[in-house]
Amino acid sequence: MQHNLSHLSHTISLLTRTPAVLNAFLRDLPEAWTFCNEGANTWSAFGIVGHLIHGERTDWMPRAKMILQFGETQTFVPFDRWAQERESQGTSLPQMLDEFARLRSENLDELRIMNLQPADLERRGRHPALGVVTLSQLLATWATHDLTHLHQISRVMAHQYREAVGPWSAYLGVLRCTGHSAT
Amino acid sequence: MQHNLSHLSHTISLLTRTPAVLNAFLRDLPEAWTFCNEGANTWSAFGIVGHLIHGERTDWMPRAKMILQFGETQTFVPFDRWAQERESQGTSLPQMLDEFARLRSENLDELRIMNLQPADLERRGRHPALGVVTLSQLLATWATHDLTHLHQISRVMAHQYREAVGPWSAYLGVLRCTGHSAT
Repeated sequence: MQHNLSHLSHTISLLTRTPAVLNAFLRDLPEAWTFCNEGANTWSAFGIVGHLIHGERTDWMPRAKMILQFGETQTFVPFDRWAQERESQGTSLPQMLDEFARLRSENLDELRIMNLQPADLERRGRHPALGVVTLSQLLATWATHDLTHLHQISRVMAHQYREAVGPWSAYLGVLRCTGHSAT
Repeated sequence: MQHNLSHLSHTISLLTRTPAVLNAFLRDLPEAWTFCNEGANTWSAFGIVGHLIHGERTDWMPRAKMILQFGETQTFVPFDRWAQERESQGTSLPQMLDEFARLRSENLDELRIMNLQPADLERRGRHPALGVVTLSQLLATWATHDLTHLHQISRVMAHQYREAVGPWSAYLGVLRCTGHSAT
């Protein structure tokens, strides 16, 4: 799927929905689901929402603007994958869901106002580890990053029922997943 | 996590939310997201919703009732994993989302009315391939089955952006997932 203008609109369609998906999924769900993780140094649904908030603040739109303004001459600030450990302290999951929805909505407003054209989407920037990337790739990654974390939340929550399902574990793909998110 | 009464309430919490999660995620999303799959003999989001509907009709509650009525003496009817190919013909995704929400809500009403007690949850039934299973395991599997398919939908949709994300594919866990659902 080439990331042309119609794909930009598909990307925005998906990005627009994620706050409502997480809200329907996680708000007021018992903490036995939302605060459990997969073991030491793994994330809970709560932590993942914190990570998504940090991405809205520091990653996607700041990088998009850096590409348009500086091209390859300026390297993106590395993404802090554990920022939510500090930033989520003293916050509740409902507050974080609200914050994520607010930031996402603001960022998408800003993206729409940019009125990006095909030539803009081909503009190049510099990732600190991956090297040269395009704006088109950045925006596709923003959407796929939502999916990777929805995928991860499903897996983390399913992990809590690993024993409870008994012999059915053999049939449940999510319990065989070893995919881990790393962005 | 042992599946006692408090876990039954956690199971119901999760099962209650899934229709709204799928609705927020998929309703009116472009068909480029919802009708694409991962290749021959794989499922799209549309097909997965059809599969969930078939489960509500023929799998979870019919099996729960069979356990309570017949115990191990009667074997569950095998689940038809491709029934949605027939049943979804001529239906739209919004119609299917409505149908899934209606069936799930009816099934959960029925489950609550059963007022299951710890001894009921230990009742045993017979699965055609897995052998003896408990009602507790069946109900935990119902919830985990929702998660396995949410996990699958995220993966199927991310697959559509495999090329578009460029070098970021190395960081996106969902693109490395090989877990497949088989129930």
